[in-house]
Formats: sequence, structure tokens, C-alpha cells
Amino acid sequence: MSQTDDVRWDIAGIGNAIVDVLTHADEAFLERHGLVKGSMTLVDGERSEEIYRDMGPAVEVSGGSCANTMAGAAALGARVAYVGKVRDDQLGEFFAHDIRATGVDFRVPPANDGAPTARCMVMVTPDAHRTMATYLGASTELQPADIDDDVFAGAGITYLEGYLWDPPKAKEAMRAAIAVARAHGRTVALTLSDSFCVERHRDEFIELLDADLGLLFANEAELLSLVGGADVWEAVDRVRGRCPVVVVTRSDQGCLVVTPDEVLDVPAHHVERVIDTTGAGDLFASGFLFGLTRGWDLAACARAGSAAAAEVISHFGARPEDDITTLVSAAIHQEEHT
Amino acid sequence: MSQTDDVRWDIAGIGNAIVDVLTHADEAFLERHGLVKGSMTLVDGERSEEIYRDMGPAVEVSGGSCANTMAGAAALGARVAYVGKVRDDQLGEFFAHDIRATGVDFRVPPANDGAPTARCMVMVTPDAHRTMATYLGASTELQPADIDDDVFAGAGITYLEGYLWDPPKAKEAMRAAIAVARAHGRTVALTLSDSFCVERHRDEFIELLDADLGLLFANEAELLSLVGGADVWEAVDRVRGRCPVVVVTRSDQGCLVVTPDEVLDVPAHHVERVIDTTGAGDLFASGFLFGLTRGWDLAACARAGSAAAAEVISHFGARPEDDITTLVSAAIHQEEHT
Repeated sequence: MSQTDDVRWDIAGIGNAIVDVLTHADEAFLERHGLVKGSMTLVDGERSEEIYRDMGPAVEVSGGSCANTMAGAAALGARVAYVGKVRDDQLGEFFAHDIRATGVDFRVPPANDGAPTARCMVMVTPDAHRTMATYLGASTELQPADIDDDVFAGAGITYLEGYLWDPPKAKEAMRAAIAVARAHGRTVALTLSDSFCVERHRDEFIELLDADLGLLFANEAELLSLVGGADVWEAVDRVRGRCPVVVVTRSDQGCLVVTPDEVLDVPAHHVERVIDTTGAGDLFASGFLFGLTRGWDLAACARAGSAAAAEVISHFGARPEDDITTLVSAAIHQEEHT
Repeated sequence: MSQTDDVRWDIAGIGNAIVDVLTHADEAFLERHGLVKGSMTLVDGERSEEIYRDMGPAVEVSGGSCANTMAGAAALGARVAYVGKVRDDQLGEFFAHDIRATGVDFRVPPANDGAPTARCMVMVTPDAHRTMATYLGASTELQPADIDDDVFAGAGITYLEGYLWDPPKAKEAMRAAIAVARAHGRTVALTLSDSFCVERHRDEFIELLDADLGLLFANEAELLSLVGGADVWEAVDRVRGRCPVVVVTRSDQGCLVVTPDEVLDVPAHHVERVIDTTGAGDLFASGFLFGLTRGWDLAACARAGSAAAAEVISHFGARPEDDITTLVSAAIHQEEHT
């Protein structure tokens, strides 16, 4: 089979289906609970309760890294399918409602027993950075049976979340999706999610990079954790040529798009005031992937990613609030005229 | 007994314990679902589902008119108790966590069976106005047994939400609280909640006004629905002297504070950009009640209410996000120097 098969979805993503519980917190709070600023810590039910009890009033919004990316891509106009597992509880209903309401095809049946829907406590410090404590709950129940082969055979890009390597059954499900996508000549993309996540699964991510990936998303810390190196440039040298496209996001310094032939250095989109960095990387991926599905050149894809990220860090929460289509078009259009 | 008894709480409030499900919607959406812009419609489980299915992605935040007021008053520094009923489900846990995390004493046990925790779908139209569809669920299970006499005997002000007149058992609970508060010489305050709510319970509200209330909060439409009149001034004339203090909120025109002796016309606090009017009346009451507990004069109470309302309409959602203590002090302080 080849890529000339019908592309029924532009992107199909797999990730942990999570509801975010967002709050403001100070650094003392993070210290008290042993959380590393800017990172994601996995917590069990008991520790989750401890942190929650001590936490201020919160806002609940559907989240999950890959789900945020898919919601953003759908909001931009891409045809998107999402695979992730919730429980048949109130949080699970919220999650399913929100992702479907953004136009994403989400048909994985909820679990009828076992752990409740996953939640991620997102603590936003006064510097607008976010620190996360995640209770994976039902999301770890994702399994190969939840992978609909037709979806991954028919999606131009299969997009995977590094976090999914944590639950063993979910990892199997990912491998099943990769096999289907590869058999149909589709592009497989991975986001490394978090530097601690890379530490936990470095060898497998390296294997994927060399064998399966068409596209890798990483921030500087994740890339350094993956391939080592004295600085990001050395890491870029080490990863270059091992995968057709590696995108390295660098917060307010923009991003590097690394291909075997060149390294594009694309500046960040201007942001008036950063309120909450939650979802910055996720929405960058939305814009970049959307650009790819539209056949834009890599620099335009990067600008689209940067514009989508700029929107999401301008408010509290990791899903787009404004009309990101207009923002992304403006970012692309502006560049054409300068 | 007299008001010289120990005041253990500044304010004790009773209301429907509700989680808000906030979304953006256009006027066509409201029309399609037969909802009246700016009002609150009660819906059953089935209609709630219908609206929710058709609704865009949402944000979930603890709400409930009285609970918002109590959270705001606690954030300002008042000692506050809250009485309302949730179910022992995920929404109920969120509600209980959020109100306790703002420092409010909330000890009503959740219901172990019956309907799920109440939810209110809040649809914010592009003009920043909100329209609400409420499924009362477990909140209707509030009953006289949930009223702790010590709380209402020991609270300087008992604050009641008009919406609570809808569920029959809850109304009985309110009457029990009023009796205790009155027996201890405390002030009983009522907010009329919504003009349709006034239509449903006009006679009882009038009876309360004449017999029990020390303080009434109403917007123009609610006051007109209660006492009639060609315009707000005629309604003010009709209500004046029937209750020690009547506060009439008038959106961007500020408010009128009506006592037997005078009518104060207090301008609204300046707001840079109105994002979502949800909670404006609730937070106005927070500031006003807080001022009363601090012994401020009525004009200062009105300015405090207006400053608290200004904060909550400057962002999405009905609970304060910024440090409203500073905003309220600034509003009071500014006036002293002009």
C-alpha cells in the first residue's frame, strides 16, 4: 500500500485522556509537595488527594497533551481523530464532550470499571510557568483493542504522546498504531512530552527515532535528555539526519527545524503578556501539524505553531479560547509581506 | 437573646451548590434551545443533556450564586459559613474543595444517593452577557436537617439566595435558618436572583420583605418584577421603608442604596473590558456584605461591592481570580481622597 490511499483524517493522535485541574500556586507549595517546577510528576491516588486537599480553588478544563494538540488542529480546520481512555464518570463525560465539541472524532468507549478518569493538577506559579502532578487513572487502561486500524491506515499523520510510554498496555496500543501507519506509508510523529519521561524511556524513544519516526517534537531539555550533548546545538548535530524532521521548541527563543539538509531558526511569535505556559508545546504542535497537512513549507509550519502557542499562553488553560485560525493565518500572511 | 451574643461568623449563606459549565455561544444557540438571554432557566436532566450535547468545549468552575458571594466575602477576609447540598460524586468533590479552599466553612454532608451534583450551563454571548440553564440535581435535596442552628445563631448576617425557593425542601430549610437568625437578633439578607424566580415566588418574597428582611439585593428587572412600577424609580418608591436597606444594582449605571431616609446613587467601578458578566451580582453582594461586617457606611459598602463586581466581569467565570482585597481597598481609599 502507499500514501496514495485515501486520507480520511489529516491527523490521528493517541494520548492520555486527562482533565486538567488548574490553580495558582507559589514555589513554597511546589517545594512542600516535592514537585519540580516546569515538570510533570506522576502521582498515585493517595498523593493526588494530598496535593488536591492543600491546593487553592481550581478550574477544570479538558487537557492531555495530545488531546490539546488535536483540539487545536481541529480548531484550525484539520480533520482529526483522537484515541485515549476515560472512565464512564463525570470527568470522563466532560473530556469526551469537549474534544467532540471541537470537531475531533473520538469514539473509544469509556471504561466501565477500574480507576476514575485521569486528572492533572496544573499549578501555575506567579512567573506563569506550570508544574504538573498527574494521576493517570483510567488513561492507563488504553489497550491494543482500542486501536481502530482503519483510523491509522487512513490518517496522513499519526501523532503520539511520549507520556503514553508510561502505562504498559498503552505502549502496546501505540506500537499497534505505529505498525498500521507504517504499513500504509503514513508519517509517524512523536512528541517527547517531558525530560523525565525521556529519562524513563530513552532507549525505546531512540529506537523509534531511528526506525519509525517521520517527525519528532522536543524542547531543549527533552532533546538533551534524549541524545545528550553540551548544549542544544550539539544535541541538534547528534539528532540531525536520524529522522526527516526534528522540531526543537525553545520558549521565547522560537524553534529550530532540523532536517538532514538544514537547520531553520524561526523566531517566536510576539506575546503581549504571558499568563500561563500550560499547553504551549501542545498548541505549537497543532499549528505545525496543521501546516504540514496543508503542504506549507517548514518555516511556515513553524510560524503557524508559534502563533498557536502564543494564543494559548496568553490565557489560563491549555485549550485555545480565541479564534486561532485567524491568528495563524495572520502570522503566515504577515511573513509573506515582510 | 440579642445581637450582643458572640458573632462566630460574619456571614452564613444558603444556596444551591452548583458547578458552572461555562462556554461561549451565539444568540442563535440560545434561540435554538429556547433560552432567554440574561436569564436563568431551570432544566431537567434530559433537556440539560440536549443543551450540553450541542454546546461547545467548556470550562468547569464551582459556582452557585450564594456560594460565589460567600467565596468572594471569604477572599476579602470575612469569616464565612456556607450551606448547600452536593452529591458524593466528582462534581460534588470539586465544589466542596473549591469553597473550602477559599476559606469558607462548608460542612453539609454530600448526598449518598439520588440526583448528581447540580450543574449550570453558562452561555456567554459575544456581548459578554451570560444566559444560564440550570439542572438542580442534588441541590434540591437540601433540607431542614442540614441547617445547623449554631451557625445561624452565631452569624451576624444570614444571606439567602432567591433560587432556593424553587426546591420545596430547601425552602423549608431556609425558613428554619430565618427563624434561628431572627430569634438571635441577626440580620437576614435576601438576593432575588432572577426576575423569573421572582415571578415564581412573588408573594412569599413580599412577605419576607415586610416581615423578616434587614437587607434586600435586587437588580432593576427583579425589583420591577417584585413590586411593579413604570420604571426603577417608581419601584424604588414602592419598596422604600419596607426593609431597612434595599440595594438595587444597575449594571454599568452603578447601584441605588435605598433606606427609609435616603436613596444613595453610587456610580459603577470603572471596567477596562467586560469579558463575562457571570457573577457580577454575586460579587457585588460579597463586597457590600463585607463592608457591612466591617462597619463601613452604606456608600463605602456599595463602592466595595462595585469593585468586587468589576474584578469578576473582567474575566471568564464567576469566582474572583485576582486579589480582590487590594482592589476593594483601593476603591474605598480612592474615594476618601477625592
